[in-house]
Amino acid sequence: MGDAAAAPPSRELLLIAFMQDLAPGQLEEIQAKFPHLDVASTVLKRGEDVPSDLARKATYIVTFTNLPKPEDAENIKFIHFLSAGLDHALQHPIFRETTIPLTSSSGVHAAPIAEWTVMNWLVHSRKYAYMYEGQKKHEWRDSLSGFFQGVHDQVGKRVGILGYGSIGRQIGRVSQALGMTVYAYTASPRPTPSSRHDNGFIVPGTGDREGTVPVSWHHGTDRASIREFLALGLDHLVISLPLTPQTTHLLGAEEFALLAASQGPAKVKPYVTNISRGKVLDQEALIAALKSGELSGAALDVTDPEPLPAEHPLWDVPNVQISPHVSSLGVEYFPRSLDIVKENVERLQRGEELLNEKKRGKGY
Amino acid sequence: MGDAAAAPPSRELLLIAFMQDLAPGQLEEIQAKFPHLDVASTVLKRGEDVPSDLARKATYIVTFTNLPKPEDAENIKFIHFLSAGLDHALQHPIFRETTIPLTSSSGVHAAPIAEWTVMNWLVHSRKYAYMYEGQKKHEWRDSLSGFFQGVHDQVGKRVGILGYGSIGRQIGRVSQALGMTVYAYTASPRPTPSSRHDNGFIVPGTGDREGTVPVSWHHGTDRASIREFLALGLDHLVISLPLTPQTTHLLGAEEFALLAASQGPAKVKPYVTNISRGKVLDQEALIAALKSGELSGAALDVTDPEPLPAEHPLWDVPNVQISPHVSSLGVEYFPRSLDIVKENVERLQRGEELLNEKKRGKGY
Repeated sequence: MGDAAAAPPSRELLLIAFMQDLAPGQLEEIQAKFPHLDVASTVLKRGEDVPSDLARKATYIVTFTNLPKPEDAENIKFIHFLSAGLDHALQHPIFRETTIPLTSSSGVHAAPIAEWTVMNWLVHSRKYAYMYEGQKKHEWRDSLSGFFQGVHDQVGKRVGILGYGSIGRQIGRVSQALGMTVYAYTASPRPTPSSRHDNGFIVPGTGDREGTVPVSWHHGTDRASIREFLALGLDHLVISLPLTPQTTHLLGAEEFALLAASQGPAKVKPYVTNISRGKVLDQEALIAALKSGELSGAALDVTDPEPLPAEHPLWDVPNVQISPHVSSLGVEYFPRSLDIVKENVERLQRGEELLNEKKRGKGY
Repeated sequence: MGDAAAAPPSRELLLIAFMQDLAPGQLEEIQAKFPHLDVASTVLKRGEDVPSDLARKATYIVTFTNLPKPEDAENIKFIHFLSAGLDHALQHPIFRETTIPLTSSSGVHAAPIAEWTVMNWLVHSRKYAYMYEGQKKHEWRDSLSGFFQGVHDQVGKRVGILGYGSIGRQIGRVSQALGMTVYAYTASPRPTPSSRHDNGFIVPGTGDREGTVPVSWHHGTDRASIREFLALGLDHLVISLPLTPQTTHLLGAEEFALLAASQGPAKVKPYVTNISRGKVLDQEALIAALKSGELSGAALDVTDPEPLPAEHPLWDVPNVQISPHVSSLGVEYFPRSLDIVKENVERLQRGEELLNEKKRGKGY
């Protein structure tokens, strides 16, 4: 802008640089919303730089791992990542040598991962697999079997959410609707209403923007604070933390023992849900706690390692439900990520702060 | 009471007359709450009358199918049923020849049936069975398989709830938390806020007491009204109606076609959930609509007949999830029903109207 203010603006280009084409219709939808933009896409290999000729024409880049060289990026107003984290970019010169705003897709994962989480809780507590196997065998396994005497519901249960970000908030929202009590845990203290606000992208109709769902907030980055949280008498523990050197093997044998010792109101052993990364917990300790009955079960969308080898003992541990790191996936993923792009094109036009901007010099 | 006001009150007896003993601790809990009551239980056969000597001593009876003879019931202040409906009692002289208040366990089923409903939606939409079978085979069936491209979430979907009672309200509550839009259908019109109020028993922390969850309310007992509702563009239809002559085969081929024709915002074919009774729909028409793809799936806790015979074709219809009429079951069932009894003993003491009283002369 600047000294070109009097001249007619040249057409801006929104470039989607990804490893595959998006679903049909998605480019057209952006184009329809912003007739003054050109919208184009290019298919590149993972991690490959955006070719100079394309990068130099671009005003906005939407990508997963494909970045422009700093010398090609003079006209770029923001780069939007189709991922929640910017791990791929943090070592790239575009992050370290420029001040081009970088935005993430944080918030896009909340609804599907919350659904995945609650689905797994209910499948476990309501013994879905027993019904499913009964149907396959055409067996009417009704209440007379006595099997359903162990079925219990979620009302009144306490869920502790380690990492109360956009995903944790949607889990909290649904938990509250189910009649549960929510306890939030964050790295930094959140003593005031404004500190509890979620300022990132929120899928309309979901989440906990004001942070009013939890009955109490807890915080800390040290092990003592985590342990205090685990001793609250939780029926559910949800791990929704980023993996960092500090959170690697954050939960081990002692933590599971502590969790199990302070049983919640439902008088069932705690259930652990991991939607973070496999290494955030000591998997051997988890297996031991499940086998000993300290934990009533676990839902794991992530394992250590991934893919989990066919011969790994985790597959057959009782009361474990494993899925192959798919909890965030769904047809809504890209359209929602592009909603952030649309919002940010408008915010730039209005001179407002961008949604989901990653501030440089700030860790997770 | 009355003219005995000056005399010390004789001890009242709360009698539990059921086909089996309740779980240990439940009688003791009532006894602890009401030290002025005697609490006793007796095990009787289904439908057997309560023996005269016991009935004559009782002040309150808690039962499923065992009723006193009218001539033995002079001291009885209320009879509480462990079921939501009073079908068993409606032909009994105690209903037709006395004015003893009869109370139901309506509301007790809401939380577990809502969990069962949402579990089935998510199992279907997130393809849980595929992950479950993968785990059994130790296969890491990740996103590269392309399978998860068909996965979608519930955000923005429209759910129409035919029968917005206590169960429908808890389904509505959780649906709203998931980001869905709720449409309520009732037999009678509910034009005012007070007419939308749920005056029955509600498990604390659940439900929609004020009736504020639905974006619109619809009503009628005629087929034309139902059809109008089915044409709203619903992604989900939940059938939560009582079975009566009027609701028998209420939904047939034409209704499913209508439902499918007015697709909801998610652009997937409608999903039907039946937690009512099998005969409320034409099961052959349902099977045809599922096979033709008019419906994307169905969750059925009830079938026609029950038990569903092993050779019945419904077991193997694609995208059908069947459970053997167990959606309301769980360890919380009896304690919650007894919570209604406790509340009503207190309400009587305070001279207030009873919770969940079945008014004589009023149909469902």
